[in-house]
This record gives sequence, structure tokens and C-alpha cells, in this order.
Amino acid sequence: MSEPLYRDPTAPLDARVHDLLARMTLPEKVGQLNQRMYGWDAYRRTADGSYALTDALYAETERFGGLGALYGLQRADAWSGVDHGNGPGAEDAAALAELVQRHVVERSRLGIPALFVEEVPHGLMALDGTVLPVNLAVGGTWDPELYERAAAHAAAELRARGGHVALVSALDIARDPRWGRTEECFGEDPHLAARLTEALVRGMQGTGHEYFAADKAPVVLKHFAGQGATVGGRNSAESELGLRELHEIHLPAARAGVRAGAAAVMAAYNEVDGMPCSGNRALLTELLRDDWEFDGLVMADGLAVDRLARITGDKVSAGALALNSGVDLSLWDEGFTHLEEAVERGLVEESVLDAAVARVLRLKFRLGLFDGQRATPPPPTGGGELSKELARAAVTLLDNKGLLPIPATVSRIAVIGPQSATTAHQSGDYTAPQRPGTGSSVLDGLRRLAPPGVDIRHAHGCALTGDDLSGIPDAVAAAAASDVAVLVLGGSSARTPDTEFDANGAALKAVSEMTCGEGVDLADLRLGPAQYRLLDAVVATGTPTAVVLIQGRPHVVPHTAGALLTAWYPGPWGGEAIAEVLLGLAEPTGRLPVSVPRSAAQLPVYYNRKDTEYGGYVDESAEPHHSFGHGLSYTSFAYGTPRITDGAVMVDVTNTGERYGRSVVQVYLRRLITSTWPRTLELCAFQGVGLEPGERRTVVLPLSTGEARTDSAEIRVAESARAALRAVPIVLDMRGVRA
Amino acid sequence: MSEPLYRDPTAPLDARVHDLLARMTLPEKVGQLNQRMYGWDAYRRTADGSYALTDALYAETERFGGLGALYGLQRADAWSGVDHGNGPGAEDAAALAELVQRHVVERSRLGIPALFVEEVPHGLMALDGTVLPVNLAVGGTWDPELYERAAAHAAAELRARGGHVALVSALDIARDPRWGRTEECFGEDPHLAARLTEALVRGMQGTGHEYFAADKAPVVLKHFAGQGATVGGRNSAESELGLRELHEIHLPAARAGVRAGAAAVMAAYNEVDGMPCSGNRALLTELLRDDWEFDGLVMADGLAVDRLARITGDKVSAGALALNSGVDLSLWDEGFTHLEEAVERGLVEESVLDAAVARVLRLKFRLGLFDGQRATPPPPTGGGELSKELARAAVTLLDNKGLLPIPATVSRIAVIGPQSATTAHQSGDYTAPQRPGTGSSVLDGLRRLAPPGVDIRHAHGCALTGDDLSGIPDAVAAAAASDVAVLVLGGSSARTPDTEFDANGAALKAVSEMTCGEGVDLADLRLGPAQYRLLDAVVATGTPTAVVLIQGRPHVVPHTAGALLTAWYPGPWGGEAIAEVLLGLAEPTGRLPVSVPRSAAQLPVYYNRKDTEYGGYVDESAEPHHSFGHGLSYTSFAYGTPRITDGAVMVDVTNTGERYGRSVVQVYLRRLITSTWPRTLELCAFQGVGLEPGERRTVVLPLSTGEARTDSAEIRVAESARAALRAVPIVLDMRGVRA
Repeated sequence: MSEPLYRDPTAPLDARVHDLLARMTLPEKVGQLNQRMYGWDAYRRTADGSYALTDALYAETERFGGLGALYGLQRADAWSGVDHGNGPGAEDAAALAELVQRHVVERSRLGIPALFVEEVPHGLMALDGTVLPVNLAVGGTWDPELYERAAAHAAAELRARGGHVALVSALDIARDPRWGRTEECFGEDPHLAARLTEALVRGMQGTGHEYFAADKAPVVLKHFAGQGATVGGRNSAESELGLRELHEIHLPAARAGVRAGAAAVMAAYNEVDGMPCSGNRALLTELLRDDWEFDGLVMADGLAVDRLARITGDKVSAGALALNSGVDLSLWDEGFTHLEEAVERGLVEESVLDAAVARVLRLKFRLGLFDGQRATPPPPTGGGELSKELARAAVTLLDNKGLLPIPATVSRIAVIGPQSATTAHQSGDYTAPQRPGTGSSVLDGLRRLAPPGVDIRHAHGCALTGDDLSGIPDAVAAAAASDVAVLVLGGSSARTPDTEFDANGAALKAVSEMTCGEGVDLADLRLGPAQYRLLDAVVATGTPTAVVLIQGRPHVVPHTAGALLTAWYPGPWGGEAIAEVLLGLAEPTGRLPVSVPRSAAQLPVYYNRKDTEYGGYVDESAEPHHSFGHGLSYTSFAYGTPRITDGAVMVDVTNTGERYGRSVVQVYLRRLITSTWPRTLELCAFQGVGLEPGERRTVVLPLSTGEARTDSAEIRVAESARAALRAVPIVLDMRGVRA
Repeated sequence: MSEPLYRDPTAPLDARVHDLLARMTLPEKVGQLNQRMYGWDAYRRTADGSYALTDALYAETERFGGLGALYGLQRADAWSGVDHGNGPGAEDAAALAELVQRHVVERSRLGIPALFVEEVPHGLMALDGTVLPVNLAVGGTWDPELYERAAAHAAAELRARGGHVALVSALDIARDPRWGRTEECFGEDPHLAARLTEALVRGMQGTGHEYFAADKAPVVLKHFAGQGATVGGRNSAESELGLRELHEIHLPAARAGVRAGAAAVMAAYNEVDGMPCSGNRALLTELLRDDWEFDGLVMADGLAVDRLARITGDKVSAGALALNSGVDLSLWDEGFTHLEEAVERGLVEESVLDAAVARVLRLKFRLGLFDGQRATPPPPTGGGELSKELARAAVTLLDNKGLLPIPATVSRIAVIGPQSATTAHQSGDYTAPQRPGTGSSVLDGLRRLAPPGVDIRHAHGCALTGDDLSGIPDAVAAAAASDVAVLVLGGSSARTPDTEFDANGAALKAVSEMTCGEGVDLADLRLGPAQYRLLDAVVATGTPTAVVLIQGRPHVVPHTAGALLTAWYPGPWGGEAIAEVLLGLAEPTGRLPVSVPRSAAQLPVYYNRKDTEYGGYVDESAEPHHSFGHGLSYTSFAYGTPRITDGAVMVDVTNTGERYGRSVVQVYLRRLITSTWPRTLELCAFQGVGLEPGERRTVVLPLSTGEARTDSAEIRVAESARAALRAVPIVLDMRGVRA
């Protein structure tokens, strides 16, 4: 008997899917839609250092006649309890994946392999995975090409270790910095997020092929949709916003990702104007599949299907609602395990279930999982350098009273603060444990890079949280005895073993020094109290002080020092990248991907609000402290008068200073005649340009005007949103222009 | 020749309108849709104390061949510059109105009178008009019957002075206390606002008659719609919210007002999800007229039509957009003056314009304006008593550590604070100048009502705003020398002659002690800095201290004193009402119509958020300091187990304390099986019940379950929203139940 059609790699993909589906029983189909198990429960390390499969995995594959997908086989963190002592690293992860897969295929009557789904929020979240700066830092680079390379690296790392599918936050728009997941956003702007989402999809998946290359990974874009707009910045809470706001701000990144070929999206936890995303047919089916012609997979967020029981009454009907709405694959839920019962009770048509199964199978075929043991690709190299390059590109100089770069004449530098001498808090949430010695703190970086003979002294000063002031006198002494002080403050998303976790891995209660990350929302946007006292005390010494913020969201910090930088969470090698910028070995090229508020009381502060000419609060401005797009250089740039030709904006940019630098040319749209109320400005194009002193270049930026809802508009070119308000406008007739 | 049909009071109303309309020229029609002029520009007081009409009025009636409507003929305030020296008071307002009307009718070829439209936000905003507590205080009474009587009084006052139409805020829902117009809202809840809006319409208009009674006034309900949801609590800014949120929270009061027969609504300044209300056909025509079958008038807000030029390109097309969307009558705009040109340019069909004119004329007929000089009704009496009754009912005891009522044994009371000895800041925005001696401060009230022999001393302490601490030592001395201190703090919406005004009368810049009102949004919800220092200093004396807040929004005030009350802006007689409650001569019966936040950083805090089981911020609770519905009594109440019969909830309430008291029984709905994500709780019925000590009564509350979007729900009966979360639920099968 010949091989069945679905095993024939030369057969058309859809025919293979169809053939396989036709052979499957209802329980086998239901099995394919389930991703119930935590991957770390599937194995245990044995005494000899190899891995054994667990009874839990045996029970799971028995129950489902195989396995649809397995989440987090390589995940390592405080929640999973996986660390270097018991989990797979670079050297043995691929073998573990192969061991599990062999078992799954054996238990499957039709030999269907499992999808291995891993968290790749900013690099692969696994032991020895390369940690990248968080998405907010990526947003701060305004450099999609660089990010595309980093994303390609992360995908290759995942595949080299036997993983298949990458879960990546990309779609959430940071509209309220109180939200602990702000760090996972590319920023507040839909255009910037869309360009970076495209780069992510291109980098991880490659382009245009039905079958993924061996070093490419299908991406699950998280989260669809509107999660950045939950009220009060509260995690998983409601979004009250309407359809226009959703389409204009929160959907463009998803639309761009789908157009770029993203293999999957994840339905978000939140509801939008009353409809929970996981049970939202208008969103997951009518918009995503029917209007946008998305033919990929929709995955549920962790336990989100079961949450629907709050409105359906039980988990069986919750699973049915999710499936009928457009969810294909569950995550940890009980609801989807009961889909057979849901079919029997008439809650779900088997044809709907078949369509979901076909989408799961199709992804497995596209990954080549049915086509024999393909050679696992070799692990990519150079991850640390790429991570540092991103970190360097993200360092953003917010304020500089002539202090930076630190002059060569300086012979004594004090390096102070809770973030100054540790890499523990430089990476964001969703970071695996790092091997000791990985990366560098700011202190490490300065010690390594400062000219020989410079005296570098260090004082911790205080902790990230709390009001213990006992370390401040030492810090003051260090600052007073130095020519320059570098004060490294910030927040932390580092989970520790004493963190309490919710059933979906979100932090239940912040412990130790945690102030950010999933489940850690911060009402007042303030650093720990002692950090302000430390700042005041160091500045009061009179020693010129540069403040560096390592953080997952904009915090409210007074601008009393001589310079202020933010590096967001720059990843393990961020300390060195920051040191390079401080010393002038690298230029500060980052630009703000979010507005920096003056206080939590004035939220929201995103630049692209509606054009209502609001005058401000009686006790405070309504304008942010720093505008979206803002970032200083060590040099200066002059922009010529922009011109528009053939749907592109052209502008001459000249480096008018004494040093090399990179300007990010930002093109903003201001709608004039329009059927709906316009925003003050909308970013519609941007391009970084590196220039030597005196060099001039013409930058050409193709215009992207959204789904042009306007008859006439102005174009304004500037180095930030605030500057664009003062820039000379060019009026455009937009009739006939479409995105 | 006989009188034309439209002059025949026995003819059907619609026939009269139709007949008159058919006789009108296009310019005359356009004239009827305009309400361009400020009423105070129409007259001047002459040397002999009578009134003369101005050239401005002559020009206006000449231009429009009469006058559609005249705004604010009786308005008196800092913006209009009208005061007792130059404006109409109780004795001469009717004569002035008659003088103007005679002129208008003479200038009109067909003898069409003008509508006189006046602000009646909390009582008639005119010299000698009776000022009532602001709407937020009315919300705090939870007493629609009482408010209905007050509304009837205000309408009678308006009509007795020759006014016709009352502009009243009723529809804005207070979702963000940063908004300066929070004081104009009945509160955060749609059900409470709907019941009070019905009371307003019934009280002002009466019920069920085609022609208004001589002492009844058609109401313009402000504002339609969603103005309480503008982002950041910013006045006139955008509302991002979606249709479900709009319908569930922001439209029920309007729906109730329309059902109760409201003669008119005002289109709001803001946009909702991209559509400005004044140019929003879906809102003003499809929803309001087509779905709700509203047959009244839609008035624009001041200059709102012209604002549409931002998106249409010019004011002619702005006027056309507003008219086509459903606006009938302008307010101060230029846009509507060009409607003839709009018709000629084909932007407006004359039939659309006719429909708007018919609605204006219909209101004039309903007022009897064509039917000869009806006797102006006599002015009503007892306004001050009614105002004080409302003020007393609104006083809300938030916290009481056994201090209140002030015991009879007390012989020395210190009355302290910037709100303690003045009536200037007791009334809200939109208040006319008061004659000296009107009303009473808290100090006045205590001096009048305290038992003979009680020594009452006073210290100002500090100003409402600023950080001048020089008065604090005297205040401390007064407190230290007393048995009890009454500390009266708060905010102010009092406009003064040095206020700068926007073109629509909103304050442009807050001056002197203004912290609230239209155009005065407050980011941080804090009182003036000196007030906190005063509070700390007085409490530190150890003298038992009761803090009274006189305010237009909830402020953040630490609960360090022995008792805390809020009276909102209680109106001129509020000081005495507060004194009665402090002394135990009246009971504290108010209940919170809004949640009181812990800080601006935790906003929003309304109780009826979606049921997402949010755990809180890492640095602060997400729960309000005081819950919606909260308010303590001097006695205590016990609730029996509620039962449900025939669509009503019944519960036995017993006064278990030693004093008379009034409990407000609150019935909350908690939706279970439902197609959209439910709120934690929704108020669906309430009823105040006054009980003597030991008395028990069965309270019967008809259920109102909204447009029931749910299959099953729980009912919970309690004294506040927070208490309802702990109350024993009764599960209801809702299938078949409709609102």
C-alpha cells in the first residue's frame, strides 16, 4: 500500500490537509485544537543529565490521541520553576524536543506531530536564549531593518532548538503607561507599531513561501485587539473604545502583520466595548478572516476561553463560543477539551470544528513536520552583538544641559543607583534565568570603556523600591568626590522565586523589587520613594549628574540633573550600550516611542489625540513632559523645506554639528477636510538617516496615509511630534489617495 | 379677511405650524433657526431705571425679519457683565421680556414671536433667581420627588419673568471627576441620572399636554451625548467610547428624558468615536428621531456649529452639516446664518430646513406665544426653603468616628476654613450675582442654630487655593481653645470679574480661587495646598474635628479627622443645612452619586465597571475610597431578606438605632448569562425610606433592568454598591423580561 496523500510532500498543501482531516475521528480532531499542557510538565531531567518523559505527558497524549500543540517546552522562569539545574539549554533542547515529538507521533494513530509553541517576546525565553531589549526599546530605535535582523536571529534560535512557533507581543499599543505590559508594546503609535510588526514577521517568517525555511518560525502576533486601551491601564480589563478608535489606533499593526503574512494571531484577554475578544466573532471572523482575508491560525490567550464561562454559564459553552467566534487553538483551557460534547449538544457544527483543525494542520504542514526528520538547523551566532546593537540604538537622550558626552577631561566618575551595577533588572518580563556573567551593567560598561586612568567608584544608593535611605550617604560621598556622577535609576520586571503567580503566569502580587510586567500595573508612575531622595541628594552635591533610566514604562522623574536618558529595558548587554553613549563612543539615536507624562494625573498623553485645542488643566498642563518622537543628539540637524512628488515626501537633512549623528525624519499627517474628527497629528512615515558632520542627504519617504478618510490634509516634517506642530505645513489634496 | 389658520388657537397644532410655514420666505425660515445674539446685548438700562432696546437688537431683527430665539436675556454673571446695577431683576424682568417681544413681533412680517431661552442649570441664572444646589448635590439626595418640586419652582420662576425655555444639564454622566463640569452631572450612574432627568422634565414641563401651562417651561436637556466620557476629563475633548458603552452608560438619561416628553435636547460639544455630536446624523436623527421617536427640538451648543468648519472647511458647510445631521436651532453661530447660501449651493435641501423650522415653530405654538398676551403667571414663593431642603437632603456623611452629631455637652465650637464663613463659593458655575445677605454660611448656620451659650469662634485659616500659611496659627489657636472644630474646606466655581472667558462663556483661565466649573478641569483632584496644611494643623491640636467639604467634584482628602461630610455645592442656604446636620437638627441623608477616588492616579473608579476581577495596582488599590451609594446615618438600619414578586423587589427595612433616619434602599443587578461582557453591578432601582427608631417598613421597588441583554441575573439589595458586592444574591431568570 502506498503512502497516503497527506504524506506526499509534492502534493498541494491544501490537498494534504484535506486528506488528513478526512481520515480523522472527532476525538482526534478535538485533540488537535488543544494546547492544554505546560511544556515543563512533559519532561524531567534524570540523574544522568538526560531527559525522561513524564506520566503527565503520557496521559495527555493518551487523552488526545496525540497532541495538538505543546506550550513552553523550553520556557524557563520563576513561574515554570525551570532553571539551569533542571531545564534544557542550548546543548540539549533540540534533543528534548525530538524526544517529545517522537512520543507524540507514536501515540497518534495518523502520526500527527505536535506544534511546539514558545514565548519569544524579546528573544527566545529559554535557557541560553538570546535576550533582546523589550519591544518598547525596539520602538525607541525607530529602526525596522535592525529589528528584522534581530527577529530573524530569534527565529533561528528557536528552530535550532526544536521549537516551531513564536509567541510575540506586537499588536498592543501603549496608550496608558500605568499598564505593566507597556514594555511589550512598540509604543503609542499605530504606524510605528505597524512598521515594526512587519519587520518582525519578515524577520521571523521570511517572505512568500508556503513552507517555512528551516530557520524560520511562524509568528503568533499578540494580542488581538485593543489590549493597550484597557481602562486605567488595568491588565485584562475592559476597553470601552469604539470601532473608529479601534481601527485607527489599535488595528493597524495587526493589519500590517496580516498583510506581511503572519501565520497566527492571539485573541486578547480583554473585551472591546462589551465583546470579549476570545468570543468576538465580529473581530476574529468577520474582520480578520472575511475582510482582511487572513488564512492563518487564531490562538487563545492562556485560560481566556475558560473565562468566557462568566457569560456562557459553563466551560463547555465557553469553548463553543470561542470556537464559533474564530478561535482555533486553545491555551491551557478546559473549555476546548469538551468540544466533542459541544458538538454532541449542538453548540458547535462539526464543519466549524473541521475548519479550525484544518488551520492547525496546515501550519504543521507548512513547518514540514510531516516530511521526515529535517535536519535541525545550526544555532545562529552573534546574538549578543545584535542585542547590544538594538540596545544601543534605543538609548534616548531626553535632556542634556551640556553634560554629555562625558568629556575626556573627566578623571573621576561616580556610578550610583539601584540599576547601576546589576544586570538582574535590565531585561523585561518573560525573561529566562541568565547564566552568571552574562551581559554587563552600566558600571561594568563604564569600567571597560572609560579611558585608562579614569577613577570609577560605585555606590548602590538605594533599592528600586521602598524607602530605605541608609545607602544614600555613601552615594553622596561618591558623587561629591567625583567630576561626574552617573545615576542609574528605574524599575524592574524581574520575577523571582518568591513571586506569586496567577494561573496564567501573570504576577499576582508584586514582590521584592518588581514594579512592572504582566499583572504589575502602577497607578502613580513613580519610582520607589528612596530613588527620588537619592536623586535629590546626588544632585545637591553639585557634581554634574547624568540620570539613566532603565525601565519598562515612562516614569515620572524630575529633570533636575544635567542630563537624562532612558534606555528602557535594554537587555543583558544594555549596560555597555549605555556606557558607550555616556562616553560618546556611540551616539544617542533613540527616539521616544511613547510620550513621557508629567504625572499620572494628566493621563492620557499620547500625541495623536483628537484635534480639540484643549487648553490644559487648571493645575497642570495637558501636554506631556517629552513628546512622542523626541530624542536629542550629540550633534544637530537642519531640515530643508519638504517637497512632495509621486506620493513621497522628500526632505534635505544636514548634519550641522561637529559629530556624526542619526536623525529620525518623521512625517506627520494633519487631516483637514474629513468626515470624522481628525487627530492633531498622525505619524505616516519615518526614516533614520546617519550623517557625518556637514553632510547633507535627501531623504525620500513614501507616504502612507492610513485608509485615507480625508479630502485634504497637511504634511509636516520634523524631529518629533511636538516640533511638527510648529513645522511649515504642505497642504495636500487627498481625493483619490488611498492607502 | 379672517385671521389666518395659524392664528386660530382651536385649530390642530400641526395644521397651525404647516399653515405658517407655507407663508414664509426662505430668509424668514433661516431667521427662525438662528439664536445668534447674546440677550444682554439686546437692552440697556436707561437713566430712569427702565430699559431701552439696542441698535444691536434692531440690526438683528432686521437681518432675520424677526428673531428665532434669543439666548440669555436674563443671564447675569461675570461673563455677561450683568449685575444688579444694570440688569433685570425679579421686579422688571417680565417687562423687559415683553418689550423685546413686542419689538420682535413688530419686525416679523408674519408676527412670529421669539423664543426666550435661559440658563436654568440649578435654578434660574438671573438676578433674584433662586439658586438651587448643583446637580451633583441633587444626585446626592437620591430623591426625584423632591427634585421635581424644585424643578417646578424654577420653571415657574422663569415663566413669571417672561422667559420660555430652560437650558438644564442633565444628561452628562460623571465618569471622570477631573472634568470641571462634574458638578453639573447627577452622578456616575445612568439609572440615577435617568430617574432625576424624568423628575426634571415632569417638574418643569408638567405632563401630557400639547400646550404648556403658563407656569411650565420646555426643557432643553444638555448634553447629547457622551460628554461625561471625554478623555482625561478634558472639557469638550473626544470620547473614544463605543456604541455599547454609549448606550449602557451615557444614553439612558436622555432616553428617559425623551420618554418623559422633554421638549428639546442640546447636541454636545464633544465627538464620540470620531463623530462630533453636532454633525452626527446617526445620533441626532437615526437614533434620537427615528428610533426613539423624539419629535422635539435639537439645539446646538454655543458656537458648536462653527467648530464643524474644522472638518468641513468653512462655516457655510459647517451649518449645512449640522442641519443635515439634525440640529434645528443654532447658538451664537455664524454657520446657521448662511443657511440660505447653503440651500443655494445645494448643500441643504429646503425640505430639511423646513422640518427644522417646523420644530421651532411648533415649540412656539406649544408655549402659546401666538395666542395673544397670556397673563404672566405670578412668581412662585418658597424658593429659598426648597433650595435649603435640597441642600439638606444632599449632605452626605462619609466618615464618623463617633463625633457627630455634635453633642449637646459641647460649649465651644471653632469654625474654621476658607469655606466656613462665606456663601460666595457655595453655589456652582452658572450662578448669577446674589444680593448681599442672601443665604448663610456654615458659620452663620451654626451661630443661628447652636444652643444658646455655645461659644462659636471663627478663623479663616487659609484661602481655597495657594500656599499662604499665614492664617494657620490663628486657626490652630481657635481649634485648641474649643471642644469641637468644624473645618470647612473645598473648591470653588465662582466666576469673578477678572475671569477670562472663552467665546462660549467657559472660563479660559482659572483665576482667584476657581478650581471647578466649565473649562476648569483639575488633573490631580487636590484641594489648594494650604488646605492640607490647615487640616493637618487643626487635627494635630487633638480637638475633635469634623471636616465639611463644599465642592463641585470629589477631591482627594485624607481621612484624619473625626468626621467627614460632603455637601457638594449646596447653594446659598447650604451653610444652614450643613449646620443642621452637624448639630443633629437634621439627619445626614445624602448618598454618594459618584465614587470618591483615592487619587487621580487610580482613575477611573466608577462602581459599574466591567466584571473583570481586577486585582489592583501594585502601588495602590483600584477601589475608590468611598463607594457609589455610600452615606452614613446617625442611626442604623437592618435589611431583611429581599423577595421578588411581579417584577418588583420587596425588602423589609428596620431602623435599629435610637434616632429617626432615612435609608436609601439600593437594588443592584448583576448579569450572569449574557451576550456581552457584564458589569460588576448595575443600579436598577432605589427608594428612600424614612423610619422612626424601631420602625420597620416593607419597601417595594419596581425592577428596571435596562434593555435586558441577559438571560439570567442576580439581584442584590444594599445601602451602597460596595455593600451590594457582599449582599446575598437572588438569581432571576430574565428570559422574557424586557425593560
